[in-house]
Amino acid sequence: MHKKLFIPGPTEVMEDVLNVQAKPMIGHRSKEFSELLTSVVEKLKRVLATKNEVYIFTSSGTGVMEAAIRNCVKNKVLSLVCGAFSKRWAQIAKACNKEVATVEVDWGKAIKPEMVADALKKDHYDAVTLVHNETSTGVRNPIEGIAEVIKEYPDTFLLVDTVSSLMGDKIEIDKLGIDVCLASVQKCFALPPGMAVGVISERALKRSEEVTDKGYYFDFLVFKKYWEERRQTPTTPAISLIQALDYQLDRIEQEGVENRYQRHREMAEIVRGWAKKFFAMFSEEGYHSVTVSAITNTRGISVADLNKELGKQGYMISNGYGKLKEKTFRIAHMGDLTKEDINDLLGRINAILKLEG
Amino acid sequence: MHKKLFIPGPTEVMEDVLNVQAKPMIGHRSKEFSELLTSVVEKLKRVLATKNEVYIFTSSGTGVMEAAIRNCVKNKVLSLVCGAFSKRWAQIAKACNKEVATVEVDWGKAIKPEMVADALKKDHYDAVTLVHNETSTGVRNPIEGIAEVIKEYPDTFLLVDTVSSLMGDKIEIDKLGIDVCLASVQKCFALPPGMAVGVISERALKRSEEVTDKGYYFDFLVFKKYWEERRQTPTTPAISLIQALDYQLDRIEQEGVENRYQRHREMAEIVRGWAKKFFAMFSEEGYHSVTVSAITNTRGISVADLNKELGKQGYMISNGYGKLKEKTFRIAHMGDLTKEDINDLLGRINAILKLEG
Repeated sequence: MHKKLFIPGPTEVMEDVLNVQAKPMIGHRSKEFSELLTSVVEKLKRVLATKNEVYIFTSSGTGVMEAAIRNCVKNKVLSLVCGAFSKRWAQIAKACNKEVATVEVDWGKAIKPEMVADALKKDHYDAVTLVHNETSTGVRNPIEGIAEVIKEYPDTFLLVDTVSSLMGDKIEIDKLGIDVCLASVQKCFALPPGMAVGVISERALKRSEEVTDKGYYFDFLVFKKYWEERRQTPTTPAISLIQALDYQLDRIEQEGVENRYQRHREMAEIVRGWAKKFFAMFSEEGYHSVTVSAITNTRGISVADLNKELGKQGYMISNGYGKLKEKTFRIAHMGDLTKEDINDLLGRINAILKLEG
Repeated sequence: MHKKLFIPGPTEVMEDVLNVQAKPMIGHRSKEFSELLTSVVEKLKRVLATKNEVYIFTSSGTGVMEAAIRNCVKNKVLSLVCGAFSKRWAQIAKACNKEVATVEVDWGKAIKPEMVADALKKDHYDAVTLVHNETSTGVRNPIEGIAEVIKEYPDTFLLVDTVSSLMGDKIEIDKLGIDVCLASVQKCFALPPGMAVGVISERALKRSEEVTDKGYYFDFLVFKKYWEERRQTPTTPAISLIQALDYQLDRIEQEGVENRYQRHREMAEIVRGWAKKFFAMFSEEGYHSVTVSAITNTRGISVADLNKELGKQGYMISNGYGKLKEKTFRIAHMGDLTKEDINDLLGRINAILKLEG
């Protein structure tokens, strides 16, 4: 039996979207493919409201994090760490032989603009890395304020992992001056995993010209060349996923992006209301994610057992991430899920845990 | 209208294989996924007859070429160049700041073992890179002889791109001592693109421990850790493609690997016979690929026009690669294509070009 996914990625994929993957194969050096990719890129620029370049990477989001580091950081980077995935930014930068400084807060807390301001006063950094929506803790970092601070340092780039928020939470990429904004497609895009989207600023492409040891696979300039000369990707892309993305972008435009963001906010409100009634939110007040809620297990339930019972009914939520396992649990409300889906799920949890609804 | 693909990747994918991609989504940190990945890896080790580690990369084959360089080359690499993709090995190594020496032969010619022996006598290399089956020229390099030469240098690793041959042409990975053997799945595996398979030797994993600046995304040791501890991949993989791969490996085992290799040899024989009758083989005699034939355009036909006419009938072949465009054309006979498909295609080409069959 299929378990409907309320986990923070891969999220539930609609049947018609799944089926688009099964279209017959086409060559990636054909006119047909160039037209497909052009269609996808134009739609992406429209729904993301960006004038920056949009490239499709055959990798997970982590791959584009490494790409951002390799293309935009000459020497030193400041990593803002508030959970597992923001920690990964620092880990990747170190693995690429970059000097890394961090601003760290406890898991569950958000990075505040003034912390970034303090750090930037003390040293020069080629870039700052941020996770907009920390999937491990359900924290939405105040990107607007952080971006304002970074703008005071014109030579310091802003690299943002929006893996679990892009297309579910409104992010004004161009206005905020994000140099690399990246997301996997298996979260708020509600597609099967295997591909990532990178939105790259003009100055990030310029910086890439000045950096050595970028490697080849993630070199932005190679993507730029193939896009400009052929409307194609440098290497063979995940064609079935690109076909599904093209289809899904039509669905997103039919819903309307503002409606999509509103639906995510409403789903989040329902889960937060429920969590505050029966448990407590793990994320700091004022900084709750609109795509995934991390809930403190104040009742000391067995999250594993709850998920087992839900599984028998065809539903799946997430345990806490890493060290937060059993201490928290996570309910994702992202992608194509609806308020009805969320109410259905919470009703089932209430019944299993015998909570008075 | 769908065009049946006789191009050297992506190759034609069978309808039932395409459909497996549309299975409902599952979580990549679930028991269900660990079982799926274990199944895939066990089957891969069986059909490839290897005891080495097998990892699944969310990237094109080019990504695993970069991974091989980053994990196995400390300083200096010898690249054997006989076409566009073997040249890419050198390009990637340079982009990773490695010192690169090359042995180069004209396009259409094969690398001979004695050329490698001469080069290895003159300098020490951490690794030698080879393309087994050069897709751009239809040349099958004599890997058996080359591997024998390299074995005399126990500290020099053998990194082989078998992108367009693995699973169509028999390659005895363990016996030849290949340290990294890589392939994309859209060639002889006959799957949609977006994923690559890497077969990694024990000593390659050891070498990886000694190398810095590997980055994170392609670090073999991260793959090793997630595989050993969880039977999972480090980052979110292309789940729908892994489901399709699992299914396709059953089909391959049902056919029998030796039968599969034999079918490829027979398809190649048919195309070569036809090419020699009406045109000429571009690849050096004795070194013809069994998965893709590059044919010299001795008649001065317009390959583009031929492909246009074939397109109207629902078929597609490949023009020559890069500088070989119109001077050569390529017919792929790989994956799940059959002798009947090949005869059907050649009959249509004969009719279009008015060749006496």
